[in-house]
Amino acid sequence: MSEAATALVDWGTTSFRAWACAADGTVLAERRAPDGLTGVRNGDFSGVLEGHLEAMGVRLGAPAVLCGMVGSRTGWVEAAYLAVPTRLDDLATQAIPVPSPARPIHILPGLAQRGAAPDVMRGEETQLLGVVAEGFRTGLVCMPGTHSKWVRLEEGAVTGFSTFMTGELFQLLRSGSILKQAVETDARPDSDDPAFAEGLAAGLSRPAEATNALFQLRAGWLLEGAVPQAQSARLSGLLIGLEFAGALARYGRPDRLALLASGPIAALYEAVATAAGLTLERRLDADHCVRHGLRAAVRLLHPDRSST
Amino acid sequence: MSEAATALVDWGTTSFRAWACAADGTVLAERRAPDGLTGVRNGDFSGVLEGHLEAMGVRLGAPAVLCGMVGSRTGWVEAAYLAVPTRLDDLATQAIPVPSPARPIHILPGLAQRGAAPDVMRGEETQLLGVVAEGFRTGLVCMPGTHSKWVRLEEGAVTGFSTFMTGELFQLLRSGSILKQAVETDARPDSDDPAFAEGLAAGLSRPAEATNALFQLRAGWLLEGAVPQAQSARLSGLLIGLEFAGALARYGRPDRLALLASGPIAALYEAVATAAGLTLERRLDADHCVRHGLRAAVRLLHPDRSST
Repeated sequence: MSEAATALVDWGTTSFRAWACAADGTVLAERRAPDGLTGVRNGDFSGVLEGHLEAMGVRLGAPAVLCGMVGSRTGWVEAAYLAVPTRLDDLATQAIPVPSPARPIHILPGLAQRGAAPDVMRGEETQLLGVVAEGFRTGLVCMPGTHSKWVRLEEGAVTGFSTFMTGELFQLLRSGSILKQAVETDARPDSDDPAFAEGLAAGLSRPAEATNALFQLRAGWLLEGAVPQAQSARLSGLLIGLEFAGALARYGRPDRLALLASGPIAALYEAVATAAGLTLERRLDADHCVRHGLRAAVRLLHPDRSST
Repeated sequence: MSEAATALVDWGTTSFRAWACAADGTVLAERRAPDGLTGVRNGDFSGVLEGHLEAMGVRLGAPAVLCGMVGSRTGWVEAAYLAVPTRLDDLATQAIPVPSPARPIHILPGLAQRGAAPDVMRGEETQLLGVVAEGFRTGLVCMPGTHSKWVRLEEGAVTGFSTFMTGELFQLLRSGSILKQAVETDARPDSDDPAFAEGLAAGLSRPAEATNALFQLRAGWLLEGAVPQAQSARLSGLLIGLEFAGALARYGRPDRLALLASGPIAALYEAVATAAGLTLERRLDADHCVRHGLRAAVRLLHPDRSST
């Protein structure tokens, strides 16, 4: 068995993921735990990290590269945002070293967009470094999620991005609003549901009427007997359609579009891209890309530890 | 002192308002209490009502007309929705009598819009009857609130309406979302705040980008030092602007527009109407109109009890 040459870590508010890699990038071990920042006691980030690395057989001295909220003001050591436009390679050159007797540790910074359209990301920038490493260096990248990001890449640099609160609005409206009963279901929204397509058409073509379309979810349930599973799918279609309408208004119709997603949400966004008449040039896995991004940072930070 | 000829009651989920009126419509007494439907014990609607009417000196036998959620399925007696288009006079002719040994009691129905743009109202229809009684019989009526209504009137009939979840979204985003810290303030949104105007411009002119504009409230607070009072005003402007954009998309620019509001929200909506280049033909008080609507219903239901 090869010895782990580096450790790659994506450390968020509620989750911890790490990979032990050989010098050639081969993944030797993987670890996923609910040890997000909020669960770290007495600020003992080092103890949590070293416990996981030891369990993966990463020896002392092997460098670790971290990304995610661990670099925020409320994390381990703050890695201040890089201002866009910025080359993604700068994530490595501007990484913040964390003093540790155990090993060289770096935290990659997030990105900030200042000015008239202020925006921030922390974690997604590392996925983008992975997207660039995958060869998609110019074009628009759609990254669905609680806070979906749309990112304009030009020759390996981020030149602009926009966050849409799609996933959070979906959860907020489902759990805390007058729509609750109308959309309450355990079923995931399904892109094959005609109600998803109807919600989507409303979001794409009549975005100004979105807050009325929301109330219609309740009225349709009250008056027309629409079932919660359909109304939930309609809500999902509406919010994702609204996101696409907004992204297209902001960035125009892209010549090149990549979708970076994992799990069921990928199918929903693919359906929306098709309905919006967009061609997906690349479909990339978010988990895969964050690992590739961390690996790309390792190559830049520790060229001696990387054989590829 | 004149004797009360009729009792007018607006009975909602969380509030109870009643007026005792002389035959000529003069208000002899007014009563406001937190006795909403949710506080009625063992279904004793009659006991709650009679207690308030007795306290106002309304004698047994004097008729009462009620509107609001008291006529919903979870209220006293269901007064099924009237389907639009409908003349507002039909609120009286279709009112539901409630059996009572104390007096003649009627509950006015709500309105429902079936079909492609399902919608409902209960309570606002009585305000609209008051608007018509005030002489505004044709035009668009804007009724701000938790669930803002925009209503098209033609010759005293409602021919269409749309509900926008503006107020509820404002509360939901303030209290339960990632925007909470960025917009947390006790100060009411102020239409003179430049941030209100900026949010408004975004909502009116770039409605598709609304869910991105929401996230910008947090990013602007994080990055640009925008204070919560400004971000709260910006959020308010954004959501109201979005509502106007939607209403104008749905109904076109109105020749005649009336604003039906009470309290501080009236000033916000007036500012938005002006910014959207709309002329308010009438500014009506919502409290006043619900009373006028109930009074108009009394005149139709009990012509013998009304001297005007």
